[in-house]
Amino acid sequence: MSIPSSRFMKKIIIQLFCPDQKGIISRLTSILFDAGLSISSIQQYIDREKGNFYMRLAFMHNLKQEIPTKELLDLNEKLNGKIEIIDADQKLNVAILGTKESEPVYHLLIKNKSKELKCSFPVLISNHNQLSNVADKFNIDFFEITDNEKILKTLKSNKIDLVVLARYMQIIPESIIKHYKNKIINIHHGFLPAFKGAKPYHQAYEKGVKIIGATAHYVTNDLDEGPIIYQDTIHINHKHSIKDFIQLGRQIEKGVLYKAVKSHLDYKVIVFDNKTIIFD
Amino acid sequence: MSIPSSRFMKKIIIQLFCPDQKGIISRLTSILFDAGLSISSIQQYIDREKGNFYMRLAFMHNLKQEIPTKELLDLNEKLNGKIEIIDADQKLNVAILGTKESEPVYHLLIKNKSKELKCSFPVLISNHNQLSNVADKFNIDFFEITDNEKILKTLKSNKIDLVVLARYMQIIPESIIKHYKNKIINIHHGFLPAFKGAKPYHQAYEKGVKIIGATAHYVTNDLDEGPIIYQDTIHINHKHSIKDFIQLGRQIEKGVLYKAVKSHLDYKVIVFDNKTIIFD
Amino acid sequence: MSIPSSRFMKKIIIQLFCPDQKGIISRLTSILFDAGLSISSIQQYIDREKGNFYMRLAFMHNLKQEIPTKELLDLNEKLNGKIEIIDADQKLNVAILGTKESEPVYHLLIKNKSKELKCSFPVLISNHNQLSNVADKFNIDFFEITDNEKILKTLKSNKIDLVVLARYMQIIPESIIKHYKNKIINIHHGFLPAFKGAKPYHQAYEKGVKIIGATAHYVTNDLDEGPIIYQDTIHINHKHSIKDFIQLGRQIEKGVLYKAVKSHLDYKVIVFDNKTIIFD
Amino acid sequence: MSIPSSRFMKKIIIQLFCPDQKGIISRLTSILFDAGLSISSIQQYIDREKGNFYMRLAFMHNLKQEIPTKELLDLNEKLNGKIEIIDADQKLNVAILGTKESEPVYHLLIKNKSKELKCSFPVLISNHNQLSNVADKFNIDFFEITDNEKILKTLKSNKIDLVVLARYMQIIPESIIKHYKNKIINIHHGFLPAFKGAKPYHQAYEKGVKIIGATAHYVTNDLDEGPIIYQDTIHINHKHSIKDFIQLGRQIEKGVLYKAVKSHLDYKVIVFDNKTIIFD
Repeated sequence: MSIPSSRFMKKIIIQLFCPDQKGIISRLTSILFDAGLSISSIQQYIDREKGNFYMRLAFMHNLKQEIPTKELLDLNEKLNGKIEIIDADQKLNVAILGTKESEPVYHLLIKNKSKELKCSFPVLISNHNQLSNVADKFNIDFFEITDNEKILKTLKSNKIDLVVLARYMQIIPESIIKHYKNKIINIHHGFLPAFKGAKPYHQAYEKGVKIIGATAHYVTNDLDEGPIIYQDTIHINHKHSIKDFIQLGRQIEKGVLYKAVKSHLDYKVIVFDNKTIIFD
Repeated sequence: MSIPSSRFMKKIIIQLFCPDQKGIISRLTSILFDAGLSISSIQQYIDREKGNFYMRLAFMHNLKQEIPTKELLDLNEKLNGKIEIIDADQKLNVAILGTKESEPVYHLLIKNKSKELKCSFPVLISNHNQLSNVADKFNIDFFEITDNEKILKTLKSNKIDLVVLARYMQIIPESIIKHYKNKIINIHHGFLPAFKGAKPYHQAYEKGVKIIGATAHYVTNDLDEGPIIYQDTIHINHKHSIKDFIQLGRQIEKGVLYKAVKSHLDYKVIVFDNKTIIFD
Repeated sequence: MSIPSSRFMKKIIIQLFCPDQKGIISRLTSILFDAGLSISSIQQYIDREKGNFYMRLAFMHNLKQEIPTKELLDLNEKLNGKIEIIDADQKLNVAILGTKESEPVYHLLIKNKSKELKCSFPVLISNHNQLSNVADKFNIDFFEITDNEKILKTLKSNKIDLVVLARYMQIIPESIIKHYKNKIINIHHGFLPAFKGAKPYHQAYEKGVKIIGATAHYVTNDLDEGPIIYQDTIHINHKHSIKDFIQLGRQIEKGVLYKAVKSHLDYKVIVFDNKTIIFD
Repeated sequence: MSIPSSRFMKKIIIQLFCPDQKGIISRLTSILFDAGLSISSIQQYIDREKGNFYMRLAFMHNLKQEIPTKELLDLNEKLNGKIEIIDADQKLNVAILGTKESEPVYHLLIKNKSKELKCSFPVLISNHNQLSNVADKFNIDFFEITDNEKILKTLKSNKIDLVVLARYMQIIPESIIKHYKNKIINIHHGFLPAFKGAKPYHQAYEKGVKIIGATAHYVTNDLDEGPIIYQDTIHINHKHSIKDFIQLGRQIEKGVLYKAVKSHLDYKVIVFDNKTIIFD
């Protein structure tokens, strides 16, 4: 009987970060080879300035094959590293926080429906009721909350793994950030580090720039200063009003946010020292 | 006898800037129509916020046709405007100032040789002797000068209409700027207003941005703050070192500078209030 | 009493296409000036090879001002032209035809909801029932129809002005095309004229191209040969499978289709000789 | 005594292409680890459809370390592979063939002078004398040759490793191609596979496309059909004449050609089945 083998195959992702040293790849891949496992992709990066080694490796295993977890953890200890062994098929729970702007919210939900984003979106939280109809359209729970304690409680009770700020016009307090370190992604409608803070399009208009941008980054306690994940820009000219900036900006914001969320969900991001390594 | 008429045709460009009011286009084009002249292009822009009207109009005339200069100047006075009537065939004299970086200098000289830039490049001035071989290759005069008074003297004696700073690593003093208001174009290897001043690539590297940029702008007394003419950006990633930034940046710098210079030479730029109107 | 004047102001757009000749702009703008009307934008293009003149002009009028329709039509006759005088505030009725792909349909409906597209979408027609839930989400009528006669009837009974094929996987017959000349916009998921017809991504994959594209064009009786309105491209590489092509292509298709539809709805398109003039 | 160690370090690149199978990376990296060598980068790609494995690996060795060539060749045989062990510091000899267009020729020579391209350019060959002054500027030998036998002789006598057709307007005969399989790079000023053959800009203009492109590819006996290395595109509009296409196209052609040549010189290209794997 012929059954597609992929039904019994699972994908495992290893993220490794350690001081650079000889033989990392050889030793790690030997462990997998000895266990009879087949590597499907390997990407590494050496930061020579800092002497750091970063790796993302994916392999397949079937139900009969054991993952050599002990050997991998032993190696990690010898390398003085930080390893993560991740079941790639397990879906993360993602909360969307928004205010009034609906397009980036729609975009995430549509991409989820078409299976391009592999996650669950159990809740949409907003300080405003305007997005409730978007939540309704996609049958997800909508919460209008302004109190940060209640937001944290809602995130916890829904077992949220990742928080996405889809043009959420409120500052996230330290009390929430500390629970979600490098697990809150914000989209800023400006080309950071230019035009931080409020009304970046107004700042750009006053300055007379010929390009506007959008930046997705992890949220830290320093406003709009967290590690940048993805950025994009679009040409504008003197004819464009601030209203045009908003419409043109929308074309790139939702894409930038989507790509950042997708990279996170695919375990392609490693954060070190306020910078990101993004494997492609 | 059949002679190509264009040999006897000259192109005139009118730039007009005035308070917005009814009938500007109608009155101006009627003057040209009455003189039997044929409009080849017209572009206008109304800044509603400031109530300003900007126009660039090109028309052709043959040697038998008179340009209705008096009527145009009368209209300009009525409109309380600022008009320029320009012989488009007259070549401007452009001085290039550089330091060590050769690629943007090469680019301008090659574009001039292929007739894409219609100007003369009588002099290349540098605070360093490294670019003298580039000047030699294209048979233009090279001056190694560090004294600003001598630079100004050289610009004047060569009847320079436009000064191009092609990665010139010195600050232009007020004494030169006041003689060349909106006539000095600088290329900054960063996405202004982010990363002003020295070593923008180092700043960008430290910040961990995912895009770097280049900005061409007119030079004013405020460093890297003058009216922006053109900008471009390029995606970078964690693998790129500062040396890579320099090489990738070169790909866009020379193009950005070239486009800004070309727009200026084609009389497509109007400056108002530290912003530019760039007709396409 | 201070009432915002724009409430009483209407916008009129004039599209003019005629043989190039002297005085077109002067004569036309004089008619408007004499009627006390204020031009808000003017764009023209002269095709020197064919000797054609194309213009799009917008002006505002209040309820007390009469539009000098007779004078404009008289001028048009003298110019041997084709003029259209359009009430820009009147919404067009647009029908969407789709099959299974939902993203370009969502995109149009979301842009309409956010008022970026000024039109009505009374019907979504499909040869498949999969898109009915998208129609439901946005409260528009859904029709599952495969018979072309019935489609034409539905378009007519809904007074459709523009038909948008949003990845509609059926060929539009001549019987429909003849009723909607230059009024059916298709999005083709390939860079036309390369990769016409079915499965353009498969063709691109086989060929090993490094860029894929999307093309929005008016539908004519020659498959994928009608006048091109807008195109965009995206870089791909050897790692991308056909499934990746589909996902990456989606990023540009919906934007290309949206821009083409928007240009049409803003009366910025003039078609001549299987090519388009697109005013910006 | 402190001597920069890099002076004694050499970079070796391994390109491997074989049927996909378990343990390739593990076995290969173990050989290098056992020899005390340090991997500086590794990139691999598995073509699942064809069952092929492709790899590019770079490592450093000092003069005291031996390269385990025998072990690598033995492994290659077991894998039924095709391995190349390359001294990355050895410069290739590159011949440029051009006709009249000078910009892509300048670009390659300037990039070589700034050390961005690591190769030697001993000869510039042309069927025309117009480019001789470009050769003079950069002190390289210029040959005006139209006879293909003489061209081949000149390539051989100069020990040419790579031939670059920088807008060379002649067809390369089979007699030359067979000596330089996947070693002749052409730049075509069109977005292949659209607009093959002569006058692609004229074809694009007639078709009314909104984007033009450029394609760098290896030359095979089928005109403009060889494996594509790199492509780029640029937006155009109805206002652009064929002359404008030529000027706009120049902006991308030289960059596309440069990137293709650079990838080749950095041993980042593997060709299989008329397609390229380009490691980044």
